[in-house]
Amino acid sequence: MNIAVLGTGMVGQALAGRLHDLGHSVTVGTRDPQATLARTEPDGMGNPPYATWQAAHPGVSLATFADAAGGAELVVLATNGSASLGVLGLAGAENLAGKPLLDVSNPLDFSQGFPPSLFVKDTDSLGEQIQREFPDALVVKALNTLTAALMVDPRSLGESSTVFVSGNDAAAKATVVGLLESFGHDDVIDLGDLSGARGTEMLLPVWLRLMGTLGTGTFNFKIVR
Amino acid sequence: MNIAVLGTGMVGQALAGRLHDLGHSVTVGTRDPQATLARTEPDGMGNPPYATWQAAHPGVSLATFADAAGGAELVVLATNGSASLGVLGLAGAENLAGKPLLDVSNPLDFSQGFPPSLFVKDTDSLGEQIQREFPDALVVKALNTLTAALMVDPRSLGESSTVFVSGNDAAAKATVVGLLESFGHDDVIDLGDLSGARGTEMLLPVWLRLMGTLGTGTFNFKIVR
Repeated sequence: MNIAVLGTGMVGQALAGRLHDLGHSVTVGTRDPQATLARTEPDGMGNPPYATWQAAHPGVSLATFADAAGGAELVVLATNGSASLGVLGLAGAENLAGKPLLDVSNPLDFSQGFPPSLFVKDTDSLGEQIQREFPDALVVKALNTLTAALMVDPRSLGESSTVFVSGNDAAAKATVVGLLESFGHDDVIDLGDLSGARGTEMLLPVWLRLMGTLGTGTFNFKIVR
Repeated sequence: MNIAVLGTGMVGQALAGRLHDLGHSVTVGTRDPQATLARTEPDGMGNPPYATWQAAHPGVSLATFADAAGGAELVVLATNGSASLGVLGLAGAENLAGKPLLDVSNPLDFSQGFPPSLFVKDTDSLGEQIQREFPDALVVKALNTLTAALMVDPRSLGESSTVFVSGNDAAAKATVVGLLESFGHDDVIDLGDLSGARGTEMLLPVWLRLMGTLGTGTFNFKIVR
């Protein structure tokens, strides 16, 4: 499948690399590909610049958000939540129309420091905001509840754990579930329509607290039943 | 230990019954004991009236909120979240001072129907509201993330799962952890001070969604790590 991954951070890199390894044709989308490749300093979290990752993954393409989305059959939104709507605007509604849009982003507001608050919650969600702004995209919320390395390789935990999908289009959701299963997810719970994103986005505060308590982001929720 | 359980609903019954079975001296607190025992109709959820449960548990006492809390070494708040502050006011700040207060309640607002919204969230929590209103109580948030039957008998799931504790007083938290372990909880994660309640109270939306999806409340979160 031709897949666009919007976002060059750790999440975008993890998803793009894994999708490429699984045989998909992957284009990473960014605002300005030349500028992205020219950055040589680590990011704010101390991670190496994108160019380092790109050099190690020559089979993955880099393009503008619009070019990446335009050539894709499925689009992955792997940006910071505060950038999500703007990035999708740059990608272009016409390049998203009729395509599954896997929204991995979280509505975290770091403007007051750590821990972040949620800029949308409870009676609405970022997933739903995206769907309202881009009504022809087939938004599926998933993978926003675990760290990048586990998104694409959950079996590394050594025990089954759970991921969630929410979305209004059954076929798009089935496509995303297929991708999740190809990553190794063996317990995918379908929460129904996109309003399920309210619950999964509100998992972030306890996730962040657990990261502090456990001293690692290498954990995941499992629904024992 | 002398324990007061404030609230006569399913959660209060489950906790009071289990604590009594474990050898504690348990008094259930209610607004008006005579009125509570006189009710013969099922509650709004179709559960039998409290008097039916009381008749089956003659070893558990029933008293006013104030009398129950006054005689207790530990107080369990097992009310609807919307009633929490009012019930504690009736119990009396002087009857809570210096005692562990196990807060099981959730800030659910059903005024707009189902699903409920949260009347406090994100940058504050019901647990913290209670602590601010009753500064001499030793509030510990726990057990608000699973159904009553599993609160007191988690092993019935057949697999280990997780519960969380948050609180500002280490000794009170240790007392609560001891109770949880006596119920059968073998994975208790200490989230630190009471602001950890923000995260666990925000688990409710996905919990409620899962209850709808799975068709049962008999499930629990496990943190796989």
